[in-house]
Amino acid sequence: MNQDAYYSWWQRQDLCYREGRLFFAGRPVQELADQFGTPAFVYSAERVRQNLERLHAALSGAGLAGRFSLLYAMKANRFAPLLTFLRQSGLCGIDACSPAEVEHAVSCGFSPAQISFTATSLSTRDLTALARYPGLFMDCDSLHAIRCWGALKPGTQIGLRVNPAMGIGRAANDKLHYAGATTTKFGIYWEQFAEALETAKAYDLQVRKIHFHTGCGYLTPQLEQLERIIAHCFRFVEAAGEVERVNIGGGLGVPHLDSDRPLDLDRWAAILQGQFAGRGLHVEIEPGDYLLKDAGLLLVEKTFVERKKDRTFVGVDAGFNIAPEPAYYALPFQPLPLRYDPSPCTEMSVVGNINEALDVWYEQAWLPDLSSQSHLALINAGAYSSAMASHHCLRGQFKEFLLF
Amino acid sequence: MNQDAYYSWWQRQDLCYREGRLFFAGRPVQELADQFGTPAFVYSAERVRQNLERLHAALSGAGLAGRFSLLYAMKANRFAPLLTFLRQSGLCGIDACSPAEVEHAVSCGFSPAQISFTATSLSTRDLTALARYPGLFMDCDSLHAIRCWGALKPGTQIGLRVNPAMGIGRAANDKLHYAGATTTKFGIYWEQFAEALETAKAYDLQVRKIHFHTGCGYLTPQLEQLERIIAHCFRFVEAAGEVERVNIGGGLGVPHLDSDRPLDLDRWAAILQGQFAGRGLHVEIEPGDYLLKDAGLLLVEKTFVERKKDRTFVGVDAGFNIAPEPAYYALPFQPLPLRYDPSPCTEMSVVGNINEALDVWYEQAWLPDLSSQSHLALINAGAYSSAMASHHCLRGQFKEFLLF
Ligand SMILES: Cc1ncc(COP(=O)(O)O)c(C=O)c1O
Ligand SMILES: Cc1ncc(COP(=O)(O)O)c(C=O)c1O
Repeated sequence: MNQDAYYSWWQRQDLCYREGRLFFAGRPVQELADQFGTPAFVYSAERVRQNLERLHAALSGAGLAGRFSLLYAMKANRFAPLLTFLRQSGLCGIDACSPAEVEHAVSCGFSPAQISFTATSLSTRDLTALARYPGLFMDCDSLHAIRCWGALKPGTQIGLRVNPAMGIGRAANDKLHYAGATTTKFGIYWEQFAEALETAKAYDLQVRKIHFHTGCGYLTPQLEQLERIIAHCFRFVEAAGEVERVNIGGGLGVPHLDSDRPLDLDRWAAILQGQFAGRGLHVEIEPGDYLLKDAGLLLVEKTFVERKKDRTFVGVDAGFNIAPEPAYYALPFQPLPLRYDPSPCTEMSVVGNINEALDVWYEQAWLPDLSSQSHLALINAGAYSSAMASHHCLRGQFKEFLLF
Repeated sequence: MNQDAYYSWWQRQDLCYREGRLFFAGRPVQELADQFGTPAFVYSAERVRQNLERLHAALSGAGLAGRFSLLYAMKANRFAPLLTFLRQSGLCGIDACSPAEVEHAVSCGFSPAQISFTATSLSTRDLTALARYPGLFMDCDSLHAIRCWGALKPGTQIGLRVNPAMGIGRAANDKLHYAGATTTKFGIYWEQFAEALETAKAYDLQVRKIHFHTGCGYLTPQLEQLERIIAHCFRFVEAAGEVERVNIGGGLGVPHLDSDRPLDLDRWAAILQGQFAGRGLHVEIEPGDYLLKDAGLLLVEKTFVERKKDRTFVGVDAGFNIAPEPAYYALPFQPLPLRYDPSPCTEMSVVGNINEALDVWYEQAWLPDLSSQSHLALINAGAYSSAMASHHCLRGQFKEFLLF
């Protein structure tokens, strides 16, 4: 990526330079950094709402109005003010995956009936805790879960998470395969599906939903795969009989590089409409990344700029432990200076304060002379960042702010 | 690995089957699991002491008695009872890498003078906090750190962390390169070393230690690389002049598979003795993994055993978020049943309760019929596990116990 591309692909109305100053959610980012201190995650409520409304508009525009629900995958970011903002917006329910997530969503104002639960490897303790929430909708992802839930709540409606043995892969990342050629722990495979239905029947459980989540970070080039998977999964719907809802999971991606194009939502929605037309099914979508990722910045303070051997390093006061995606998943959070003229830049490596070799935020950042600047903003830090933070090296301190 | 190998390579006096029951630190593991609940990390104080004493014995045996110090790299495991146990043992000091680590070590009984500090990307806030601990020994890893520390504590003794641009790699793992062909953020390179010395001089700082940490998990086959690196680093010692101590970092590894042989400590110590003989230098070693890793088990409860498509999965009530090494670094924590007859086993995948594809504890575990057993013990879980735990999916709950 050259300097021009580095400074253009991500700019949008609420995240851009104005007269050389970086603005986010209507504020100069420098003011935020000065007020809040660092490291701090800042989230734009308005951007989250726009992301949600864009999904609503695309689905309604394609003819799915009244036939879909959005369930926010709270594992992406559980910051309490954000959850309450989403509750109040009325634009989505919740996808939860642990009893503590259910409790937390309820503590932020969601009712159990607004929560769909899809998890793996649940213990008896987990299931007993979950059974205490009337209205919570349970998707069972194993025969074992069907038996346990059936014993706790016989006669209720459930979903079955299935595994189509087909996945959506972003080629870049082999760590993120939920389904596909290798057999994974997720869901019920076709080979065991008849037994799953019999087991449900034995407990008088009514299978009303089929759920599959088959990948993450997909963009327009992966939509054909998505379409094939959906088409393939109707065999589960048909075999199950009285299914009313199909949940296609999350996985909608956002661009990370200038070579990525934003997901073509109209095409995505048209695929859903094409697949679901005339089937009388309600469609559920569980986006995490798509709602939050580009709505969050991580603000960090520069600790040093220094030439080491043949490279220039910019150190910052936060490490991969508070936002692991770049280090573990190779999903870059591009660093931006808070002032940009546009002056000539050089390539620098932006690194964190953890004693681990993988603690690198960005290998080749185009940055101007930083001697009169103190902070950087890392973009795309809104999802799977604070949610996965650890105290490694006792460096787990950070703050979070919801900006209205 | 076949079943026999699976059940033999790791057995030792304090971790073995007796009449079919798994014992650890003198206790039947089933009793521990029943008392403590799961997930729980259990650490053997005695094993940690043995690991420390083995290092002492090897170094003394090679002729280094009185000329070495061991500094426990507390980033590996900061469990407070463990730190106090180490303090009381008198067998080691501390390697710390953040102000909060220093404070925590002090809270557990260490004095600042027992702590050596080596970190990267320190902020002014960090350095100011560190300057409040008299006696704390600072290794500067950048010119910037020299300048800042020099301004805060002119006239004091420091170390310089250098980067020899040579690393010790365990071929299996390209994520763990601290030094080597690619330029990293760590340490001062030869190209900038003269400037570093001048800078120190400008603040009247006396460079008394050279520090380098060049890899991790090394076993006997990597000792030749270690020797070459040490030999190479004397150029830094000589250039610096009045150096009294050399710190060769951590990195000593433990076996993870039956094909790994334990590190040959006598050979390791002989290399150190050979390199340091006649130089009048004190040697510091900063082991983390070597002291803790094989002294800890993670106890988990079985949630289900089930055939999915063509594989058998054993689910457990803990995910990679509380012990990330297997998922992120491909360093396996081998699962063991608490009872083993030895009955015929089959290969099963042991998986956690997090909704992520990488949440797999072990791909091909040889396990017996588990229908009458409720728990598993994962070995080698003593280091970089609880220390790196996150609350991902709000599944961050676990307990820790130091066993005497
Ligand atoms: C069942 C389920 N639904 C939804 C999501 C959210 O995915 P994403 O954030 O990629 O949209 C996940 C992510 O792991 C998931 O496992
Ligand atoms: C400076 C330093 N010393 C010691 C260690 C401990 O290494 P190990 O646990 O591999 O012995 C580390 C690990 O990151 C380190 O960075």
